[in-house]
Amino acid sequence: MESSLSCHLHDDDGVISLGGLTGQMIRIGLALTSTRDLDELLELVLLEARKLTGADAGSVYLVDGESLRFETSQNQSLFDRLGEETVRAMFKRSMLPLDSRSIAGHVALSRQILNIYDVYDIPSAAPYKFNPDWDFANAYRTQSMLAIPMLDQSGVVVGVVQLINAQARGETVPFDYRFKHVVSAFASQAAVAIVNARLTQDLHAAWLDSLFRLGLAAEYRDKETSNHIKRVSEYSVLLARCAGVCGEELEHLRWAAAMHDCGKLGISDAILHKPGALTPDERSTMEYHTLVGAQILQGGGNPLMKASQSVALSHHEKWDGSGYPRQLSGEDIPLFGRIVALADAFDAMCSRRVYKPAHPMGEVIKRIESDRGKHFDPVLVDILLEHLDEVDRIRMAYLDNDADFEKFRNYSLLKINAVL
Amino acid sequence: MESSLSCHLHDDDGVISLGGLTGQMIRIGLALTSTRDLDELLELVLLEARKLTGADAGSVYLVDGESLRFETSQNQSLFDRLGEETVRAMFKRSMLPLDSRSIAGHVALSRQILNIYDVYDIPSAAPYKFNPDWDFANAYRTQSMLAIPMLDQSGVVVGVVQLINAQARGETVPFDYRFKHVVSAFASQAAVAIVNARLTQDLHAAWLDSLFRLGLAAEYRDKETSNHIKRVSEYSVLLARCAGVCGEELEHLRWAAAMHDCGKLGISDAILHKPGALTPDERSTMEYHTLVGAQILQGGGNPLMKASQSVALSHHEKWDGSGYPRQLSGEDIPLFGRIVALADAFDAMCSRRVYKPAHPMGEVIKRIESDRGKHFDPVLVDILLEHLDEVDRIRMAYLDNDADFEKFRNYSLLKINAVL
Repeated sequence: MESSLSCHLHDDDGVISLGGLTGQMIRIGLALTSTRDLDELLELVLLEARKLTGADAGSVYLVDGESLRFETSQNQSLFDRLGEETVRAMFKRSMLPLDSRSIAGHVALSRQILNIYDVYDIPSAAPYKFNPDWDFANAYRTQSMLAIPMLDQSGVVVGVVQLINAQARGETVPFDYRFKHVVSAFASQAAVAIVNARLTQDLHAAWLDSLFRLGLAAEYRDKETSNHIKRVSEYSVLLARCAGVCGEELEHLRWAAAMHDCGKLGISDAILHKPGALTPDERSTMEYHTLVGAQILQGGGNPLMKASQSVALSHHEKWDGSGYPRQLSGEDIPLFGRIVALADAFDAMCSRRVYKPAHPMGEVIKRIESDRGKHFDPVLVDILLEHLDEVDRIRMAYLDNDADFEKFRNYSLLKINAVL
Repeated sequence: MESSLSCHLHDDDGVISLGGLTGQMIRIGLALTSTRDLDELLELVLLEARKLTGADAGSVYLVDGESLRFETSQNQSLFDRLGEETVRAMFKRSMLPLDSRSIAGHVALSRQILNIYDVYDIPSAAPYKFNPDWDFANAYRTQSMLAIPMLDQSGVVVGVVQLINAQARGETVPFDYRFKHVVSAFASQAAVAIVNARLTQDLHAAWLDSLFRLGLAAEYRDKETSNHIKRVSEYSVLLARCAGVCGEELEHLRWAAAMHDCGKLGISDAILHKPGALTPDERSTMEYHTLVGAQILQGGGNPLMKASQSVALSHHEKWDGSGYPRQLSGEDIPLFGRIVALADAFDAMCSRRVYKPAHPMGEVIKRIESDRGKHFDPVLVDILLEHLDEVDRIRMAYLDNDADFEKFRNYSLLKINAVL
């Protein structure tokens, strides 16, 4: 363990190098603050804490209101014995009450590092107890433990890092208390990084939430339910993934699909809700909803908004060039537009709407097949038909019920208490 | 200068303390990564860089595409001589081309620290030159300079910190090159903090942008222009500031005001655009737009969305209790609802709409005054009437022109090229 904490500054050609510890702490700080995904960050915090103290295993807990949430564990001995994937599958996210009965809870409340030589020798007078269930279940012997509170810049406890079984010369030893300042400094860096990652995550969620509301608002016009948007989103992501789209682009499509019809906000009821066929003039006005949508979504400057604009504009183009507004054909139609065109038409056919019941699935499939290479991209139709099981899982997860439609029928059912 | 960079680790009761430098670097790193406002962060970067190197003055530049943007300067001698506020007013944000002719540009491109003993002795063979204009204008003598590239974790140049006139024993000396690793480590911490702050800023802007689009979409229903939303937002912020609202809450109101009418998305054209008076049934349906709006905006979980929901629900309540949907009166109506009620009604009166011209300002003021304590909060009416100059500035900044209305009249004017 000593070797991992060598602390020295040395002179070299008159230039003062950053000594082992300073350099190491700065490198760790940079790595932590550059990692913006919270799960990835917590793994890194635990890994670096284990390296810094030579721990065989460890866990991270985050404070969540009046509870401590167990977030992740690493256990080198078990990883070596059973394989990392198997061991990770054994960990379950769980909640502990934020009180002094658990070691992590005690540390979070006392805000002090706790250094235990052997968890099976904790005096019975201590408020906290060690829970040996995990050890018994997995033939592991937890011995030494160092539990560190992570305090952010303003002194708020963000969570607890619990390190297990310090290793030295191949055996388990107590944690070396001489490094408590180093470990505290590390815990502060981790806390600030966690606070930042959470802020980013919250802001990102708020952004996506507001985009969904924009999609939802549009569906109000069309008397569609919010389940319709969710289904079209999920079908689109499924089709895209099978077509080879991956990573961030899948997420862009998810939200772009939710907003595809927002241009309907600009179309009058007389046209939008006309029971019979539209006159050529009315049809041409209706078709402008693609351009109105593109106008509402234009100029966002980020890839998600660009994808959304493209989908709003192109989701009524048809593979054979007979769609609108630009009569594009084949692969000239943006892929996301082709995907949402199929997902939206499929969902419209197999879902009930205010004015019509759902079509039977057999009939829907026949119609989709007959439009293969006419309305729809043939490759996407094949993907859809090959994944009907997954499609059905999505359909069942977001099934409409009567109450979803009631709100459109009669606003007097909308009670003030329901929105307060 | 040496004293600020003392580098040592010492043993104390067997506990290893973090030495001066390690502790200092970690403290600086934490302070930088905890500062999320970009302007505040840049001031802190410059201040800490000056402390670390004993510099009298300095500037920060950020890379912006093919340019370097001058962001901020500090100059202790001038602050002491003329007062900080005066000196800060003399700095102007400006752009430099990102090339080797300037010192900052050269450092950004070469990615190397540049240590100049005297900027008036730069050899003529050097690609960069010192621009003495500032010195002449302000009776300052720039002498030693240390220009440091800020590289993020992936080695991208984020910007340049330019430090001026190292001080030792009361006089200007060259910067001590022995600390180049320390200064580089600091610059990396600053770069990562800047990248994070920008990410947060961009994400925040994307969120607000999407909220504005939601307001915009709603105004499409009502054939209102986007200028109407901007005016109502600005009037609301003006009223709130004069009523003592400050800080983040003002920003919440700005966006809440933009979305106040989003419930109109759920009201049919027949009612929304009926030329004559509404029947009691139609009126009651129309009034549900406050509840529909609250429903679209509910459950956001952050203070901005909560404020938005409250405004959507309460902006048609009246001071005397004769409004809707809850017939609240006086201060039982949330302040933001009272503010938007006045801002919205005022703007409706003094702006043209698709179906009516603007009313003359004299008449508008008379109507607002006669509704003081009836429709409107009397305190807010007084504030509005006392600030008609500012109100007029807002009105002029967001004046509607004919083209803003054309898009509602005839969608065939909407050209595809305009939205691509």
